[in-house]
Amino acid sequence: MIYFNNAATTWPKPDSVYKAANDFFRNSGMNPGRSGSMEKVDAVQLIYEIREKLADFFSIKNSAHLVFNSGATESLNTVIKGVLKKGDHVIASKVEHNSVIRPLERLINEREIEVDYIDFDQKSAEIDYKELKNKIKDNTKLIISSHASNVLGTVNNLEKIGKIAVAEKILFLVDAAQSAGVIPIDVDKMKIDFLAVPGHKSLFGPPGIGALYVRDMETLLPLKEGGTGINSLKTIQPEIMPDYLEAGTLNTVGIVGLGAGLDFILNQGLKNIHQKEMKLLKEIIDGLTSLPKIKVYGKKDIENRTAVTAFNLDGYSSNQLAFKMQNEYDIQLRGGLHCAPLLHKFLGTDNQGMLRISPGYFNTEAEVNEFLNIIETLI
Amino acid sequence: MIYFNNAATTWPKPDSVYKAANDFFRNSGMNPGRSGSMEKVDAVQLIYEIREKLADFFSIKNSAHLVFNSGATESLNTVIKGVLKKGDHVIASKVEHNSVIRPLERLINEREIEVDYIDFDQKSAEIDYKELKNKIKDNTKLIISSHASNVLGTVNNLEKIGKIAVAEKILFLVDAAQSAGVIPIDVDKMKIDFLAVPGHKSLFGPPGIGALYVRDMETLLPLKEGGTGINSLKTIQPEIMPDYLEAGTLNTVGIVGLGAGLDFILNQGLKNIHQKEMKLLKEIIDGLTSLPKIKVYGKKDIENRTAVTAFNLDGYSSNQLAFKMQNEYDIQLRGGLHCAPLLHKFLGTDNQGMLRISPGYFNTEAEVNEFLNIIETLI
Repeated sequence: MIYFNNAATTWPKPDSVYKAANDFFRNSGMNPGRSGSMEKVDAVQLIYEIREKLADFFSIKNSAHLVFNSGATESLNTVIKGVLKKGDHVIASKVEHNSVIRPLERLINEREIEVDYIDFDQKSAEIDYKELKNKIKDNTKLIISSHASNVLGTVNNLEKIGKIAVAEKILFLVDAAQSAGVIPIDVDKMKIDFLAVPGHKSLFGPPGIGALYVRDMETLLPLKEGGTGINSLKTIQPEIMPDYLEAGTLNTVGIVGLGAGLDFILNQGLKNIHQKEMKLLKEIIDGLTSLPKIKVYGKKDIENRTAVTAFNLDGYSSNQLAFKMQNEYDIQLRGGLHCAPLLHKFLGTDNQGMLRISPGYFNTEAEVNEFLNIIETLI
Repeated sequence: MIYFNNAATTWPKPDSVYKAANDFFRNSGMNPGRSGSMEKVDAVQLIYEIREKLADFFSIKNSAHLVFNSGATESLNTVIKGVLKKGDHVIASKVEHNSVIRPLERLINEREIEVDYIDFDQKSAEIDYKELKNKIKDNTKLIISSHASNVLGTVNNLEKIGKIAVAEKILFLVDAAQSAGVIPIDVDKMKIDFLAVPGHKSLFGPPGIGALYVRDMETLLPLKEGGTGINSLKTIQPEIMPDYLEAGTLNTVGIVGLGAGLDFILNQGLKNIHQKEMKLLKEIIDGLTSLPKIKVYGKKDIENRTAVTAFNLDGYSSNQLAFKMQNEYDIQLRGGLHCAPLLHKFLGTDNQGMLRISPGYFNTEAEVNEFLNIIETLI
């Protein structure tokens, strides 16, 4: 099997991730902070160390402002629903994922918020920074941008957006679903107020774990209240980070797996991982663009992007071709719309969808060649 | 180490749980339903089978109405925030956990809901069913009851409550945090509209996985919207169960661990597991009540309860004693308030807290005897 669906979830994970999660689950999987005694100091200490290391990875100075949760979808919902009030205006873009669009669309009715989805450049697929600036109004409360498109791989210039947000005193939420682990993120330099991080993609963690950075606790309400193991007599959520946003039992096994994934990145070097993925992607893009009857979407170079591209082959819907590649050749791609409805409407691919190919650090050139050879036979 | 904190999380898990989670994570941990092709039919099929089995365990006829999420706290928040609207009245009880109380208290201000917390019987610790009935008003929308108290182990009569709820056309939410896996639950017989289930307690799953049963999708809005892998062109959450309440990447490794935990229960027999735990609990209660200077809270018999009891020893705060038991004797209990503030205020133990002891299926009589012998030396 050739796995080219790393933008959905990375697979395989480094062996150390499987091992760390399993060891922790077997040996120390008890409930940290729920003992009242000093039980399991080692588990509490380990979670703390991973929080510190992950915070450091994103240049977050106070690790208490980085909370663990079930993933980027929870992070995005937490911010969107925790920040926005009746009458607020939001600027997002047409490259956003349904985990941004669907919560926003709900609040348009429920809280009478206003949303502008700005266009992106057809060639670079970067969002239109000028339009972003022009859309700002007196009631603009939040700017939301994905760091990298999950369909086209384009990386947006967060520093540019962050500067605009700070100058206009607007909160800035970044969806790092496709970038965390492969593109450097500095929450201060980029003026990010909220950073949504999945654990199971380029950070090599298990599914069901993610993180959210929150610059200022007072800018939002929690998505979930519940037990925190501290201030239990209080019937309001303790206003202390990270507990404020970490109600209930944490996915400690997931955190430990994520921690091992982060260690793997730190050992290999983020740059080396990204370069290897880009080398494979370049071969894929060069191969596909050299073939007739194939349309590759988005930009064709590998500057400033993540390891994902999308294409279609004349005569096939994207789902048909994905099915064929899977069934006849055991190659995992992804067809369809990739949860990005506005992007497809903008590009006119809402019927056909796109075939997405996303190589990962554990893919090989031989696999890329095999894939290209097979595609050639289908033309 | 003697682990008597199974009410926080069960430990150890059956070996098959560790093995299933690890095997799945290593071999099939890809993202089900996010391929567009028929990729990973086996993973999709496995998740489906576990959903069916868990649904069957609670006598849920249509397994699509059982959704997976991060745990009971998420389930409770989903229902409380998804159901209640401005002016609604809720009846809960003083035995409830902060994962019920804190969301409710937030909505008192935010949505102007009204909440009555009813008393419980000082001896049986069951909620006061008469008071429950008396508190019902025209605007009562929701009755919330824990199945079993996480401090006193008392099991409430859900059939009795469900009958009242159905007769008055009020929705009925059950917090099964302490019962799912050891006390039989039948959502139809008990007239349960929403059942909040944690994975990591008596179902022997990993932390970070749980489930929520929803009788009628139309009675609530989701807590989170996001990608579902279906109807991606729609910018509203698909109104199809389970997708309606399963936005984002599922914790598939957790689901598979939970499935193995359920298999273990089905193999051993829920009754046998419960009986063994009750036998250990009886020895603990009998031992503690025979000692001077010890106050055991709640009822002393083992009828109609889960394997948890709480006590205090004169001259110690519960946290002091928990600390001592841990540090000097390597016995894991839990001191403090157990996230149940109203229960402690009602019983006057909000300063001292209680020492909670919760034996599990993997504890032994020898461990119980060792614990009782140590307690005796402290008197």
